[in-house]
Amino acid sequence: MKKYLLTPGPTPVPNSVRLAEAQEIIHHRTPEFSKLFMEASEGMKHIFQTKEDVYIFPSVGSGAMQSAVVNLLSRDDTALVLETGKFGERWRDILGKYGVKAEVIAYDWGKAARVEDVEKKLKAHPEIKAVFTQLTETSTGIVNDLAALGALIKDTDAVLVVDAVSGLAGQEFRMDEWNVDVTVAGSQKGLMLPPGLAFISASRKAWKLVENSTLPKFYFDLKSYKKNFEKKTQPFTSAVSLIAALNEAINLIKKEGLENVFKRCARLASATRSGVGALGLKMFAETPCDVVTSVRVPEGVDGAALVKRMRDEYGVGIAGGQADYKGKIFRIAHMGYMYDFDIIIAISALEMMLNEMGHKVELGRGVAAVEKELLRK
Amino acid sequence: MKKYLLTPGPTPVPNSVRLAEAQEIIHHRTPEFSKLFMEASEGMKHIFQTKEDVYIFPSVGSGAMQSAVVNLLSRDDTALVLETGKFGERWRDILGKYGVKAEVIAYDWGKAARVEDVEKKLKAHPEIKAVFTQLTETSTGIVNDLAALGALIKDTDAVLVVDAVSGLAGQEFRMDEWNVDVTVAGSQKGLMLPPGLAFISASRKAWKLVENSTLPKFYFDLKSYKKNFEKKTQPFTSAVSLIAALNEAINLIKKEGLENVFKRCARLASATRSGVGALGLKMFAETPCDVVTSVRVPEGVDGAALVKRMRDEYGVGIAGGQADYKGKIFRIAHMGYMYDFDIIIAISALEMMLNEMGHKVELGRGVAAVEKELLRK
Repeated sequence: MKKYLLTPGPTPVPNSVRLAEAQEIIHHRTPEFSKLFMEASEGMKHIFQTKEDVYIFPSVGSGAMQSAVVNLLSRDDTALVLETGKFGERWRDILGKYGVKAEVIAYDWGKAARVEDVEKKLKAHPEIKAVFTQLTETSTGIVNDLAALGALIKDTDAVLVVDAVSGLAGQEFRMDEWNVDVTVAGSQKGLMLPPGLAFISASRKAWKLVENSTLPKFYFDLKSYKKNFEKKTQPFTSAVSLIAALNEAINLIKKEGLENVFKRCARLASATRSGVGALGLKMFAETPCDVVTSVRVPEGVDGAALVKRMRDEYGVGIAGGQADYKGKIFRIAHMGYMYDFDIIIAISALEMMLNEMGHKVELGRGVAAVEKELLRK
Repeated sequence: MKKYLLTPGPTPVPNSVRLAEAQEIIHHRTPEFSKLFMEASEGMKHIFQTKEDVYIFPSVGSGAMQSAVVNLLSRDDTALVLETGKFGERWRDILGKYGVKAEVIAYDWGKAARVEDVEKKLKAHPEIKAVFTQLTETSTGIVNDLAALGALIKDTDAVLVVDAVSGLAGQEFRMDEWNVDVTVAGSQKGLMLPPGLAFISASRKAWKLVENSTLPKFYFDLKSYKKNFEKKTQPFTSAVSLIAALNEAINLIKKEGLENVFKRCARLASATRSGVGALGLKMFAETPCDVVTSVRVPEGVDGAALVKRMRDEYGVGIAGGQADYKGKIFRIAHMGYMYDFDIIIAISALEMMLNEMGHKVELGRGVAAVEKELLRK
């Protein structure tokens, strides 16, 4: 069966990227690899919108999240987590595992973090050293207002740490302009790569914390990455094939233009919402992001079966809900190597499957709404 | 320039493996991926020669080394390191970073660990909880006698932890039969894969330590890997493309037969030693392994230039010495996707370059010795 991947990571990988990944292996301690590696690192600075160096880990995104925690903090430090979903919980989980005290502001799923709550918390707890949050929360489809959070936090002693794993190269993001101190990201979302690379970049303010951090670290030790970076290399064996693929993916993004990538995702998000809305379904996220649309499963429909049957019977992969929202929401991604007709496919498959499952909707109605929105420009 | 990679990792990747890696991405939370993943995991049990489960990390080998330390031990525990080279030092480094006391038996580079030293040390320090060593030490080309070490350690309270990163699927290795408690490995050596996957497996004796370990861990938390493995999945996003490639690599190894792979590497090692010896060069390792041959650079030759010029002028990539042995030894790998004529190439390039560098050797003499050895069967 021909397959269509519309999940919020991994996302489809363009052919030229897959072929770059399949190139012959080169050794990681050669001038040839150093050139490739430095090009990729330079490209990532552009995608992070930062002048700081971006370090590349052979790991998936959660490794970079661990890296942020163990490099910034020390045992018994206090951190603040803005928990807007499953990946907010992950910050809390990691902090707990490393003996960092976590103040948590937990929002109902579907809602974004509010600047006023953070302001209050930071005033009440001046000992907070770092604020951990998400650019976009994959599990709920919300986007956080990082520009506002950054503007608040920059005048405090705390640093702002952003998990941009699902948002990077899809949702508008400007690390330096928005005063984000630490950004972590992964390869298998907007970057259009297979999973296996993670990224991190830190501001000068954050590096001061790194200098004083005493949590144990080895594999994800930023100082060691920095030291090796100065020699155009990495502490351990580099994930050579994925970095070759990364270079090609960055080329594709630059060709399209990062701002155009943001616009494309926003446009696809808007078209997706139109299509789903025309079928009478309700959005889940209060402040929907541009990389994934979360939708409430209509009354009387088995949400888990909907996702499973679309995948197994049509070959159309979307994502279900996680944790408490299993079966209650579904999620359609529109990031990375996804274009107009991928959304047509998703909405077409959705309206067909809803009918098959006894939830009657007018065939073509959702697709028509998508088309209308896409034709707006 | 056509390139020939004879470095001890990364090693060349066969075409079918590279194409498996370049296949379209599938989502990691699907029955389709679970099937692929469980096949790969089952295959790795065969390659580890163990009945225990083998866990796969999205990381390079050093990540699995960290995993062994943080999952087995607690702060202020004592461990013993059998330091036979650079990667032995890495064990010591990781243990130190996590506050574990390291007893170290440091051997001169080129020598293997001796069972009697370990016996004495374990008697003097009954508090030692784990003994860390290497199957083959990439930096020096030695092989350790793990069967003997395992036989000694199995009757103590300590566990034997083996870094098989450079040896796996090249050097004979039998985890269960040899009483190895924990094995860690990487993808870019005998497994013929790009770098980016690491592996770990633990005996029941080792799992008891895991249950009591209090060192902080998240990304490399074995319990979390075990729990997810029971659901045929992994804690985080899986490195889908590399696991697809792994499956194909395992197929290739099974087709050849693991025992035949051991024999091939041993035969290539022997041929390499013959070739180098015929040129009048001296071996470096006292107990040479089957996956990489280390050779002393002859008097008057600049060893770093030798390696660099072979790479830049002939396209033949071998490895130089590391740390104190920079420029003093060079290393030719014979593992993974390397066959008879790769050794011919290496020795041919070596004799040509020695002549170019003013160290006169009879052209063809080394190659003839290789051929003779290869013709023996």
